[in-house]
Amino acid sequence: MKRKLLSAALAVALGAGAGYVLNASAQQKPEVLVKQRQSAMTLIGKYWGPLAGMMQGKVPFDAAVANRNARYLEVLAQMPWDGFAESTKDTQEKTRALPAIWSDAGKFKEAQERLQTSTAKLAQSTKDEGAFKAAAGEVGKACGNCHDNFRSK
Amino acid sequence: MKRKLLSAALAVALGAGAGYVLNASAQQKPEVLVKQRQSAMTLIGKYWGPLAGMMQGKVPFDAAVANRNARYLEVLAQMPWDGFAESTKDTQEKTRALPAIWSDAGKFKEAQERLQTSTAKLAQSTKDEGAFKAAAGEVGKACGNCHDNFRSK
Repeated sequence: MKRKLLSAALAVALGAGAGYVLNASAQQKPEVLVKQRQSAMTLIGKYWGPLAGMMQGKVPFDAAVANRNARYLEVLAQMPWDGFAESTKDTQEKTRALPAIWSDAGKFKEAQERLQTSTAKLAQSTKDEGAFKAAAGEVGKACGNCHDNFRSK
Repeated sequence: MKRKLLSAALAVALGAGAGYVLNASAQQKPEVLVKQRQSAMTLIGKYWGPLAGMMQGKVPFDAAVANRNARYLEVLAQMPWDGFAESTKDTQEKTRALPAIWSDAGKFKEAQERLQTSTAKLAQSTKDEGAFKAAAGEVGKACGNCHDNFRSK
């Protein structure tokens, strides 16, 4: 009975993840990869937005929100990159990804690492408003650096 | 000069997060909330898929991948829920969200917590294949329970 219930639940759960059983992104359809990487960017925008507001003084500094969002960003900063597989280079999906992502892969990798490093530092900075603002500035620069070079206007 | 560079980078970075300066989801447009919550579900699918495959024995157990994905899932399981604000109830966006999300909010909250609890346990289970499989079964049931009750077929 327990096993039967589990199987039923699994069948449902797997519906959501159908086609995701392998780890390597190479096996994924390009349109799935594009959707996944855009989803990561959407969530980075969700959690970065309030922090940008705090950094600019448009929103009062809130250490708890800053800490939560920065911790989320540190994890989310790991997620978009395997979605930029070579197989997505000529996708028909709507995307602002520029060819430099693949032609200048070393620089793109550096840009990824800059976001990862700066969000990790941000997550360590949120007890102090001044430290937070400085660290958030570095995150903003990491976003801008990558968008300038690898995303169309 | 440094300040000028920072401002330029910020302007770019904020382009991605425009409209996200406030923390409360109530201030967000319903279509943004729907996109954000669907993005969280897309990423939950991305990282759950390989674990479901391992649980079913379709993919060999890989402790490192299991650990990474489970840690990601633990964090992602925090992210969809504020996207189900009342303001999204009558959205024109394509969504499978059922009215029970708002009419049975207590049960929906329990379903959220079940995913959060089970993914947290999963992240603690990945050193041992047997423990992992048992914990993954609970995550699968949490997914299925919520989809059965709050998502249209």
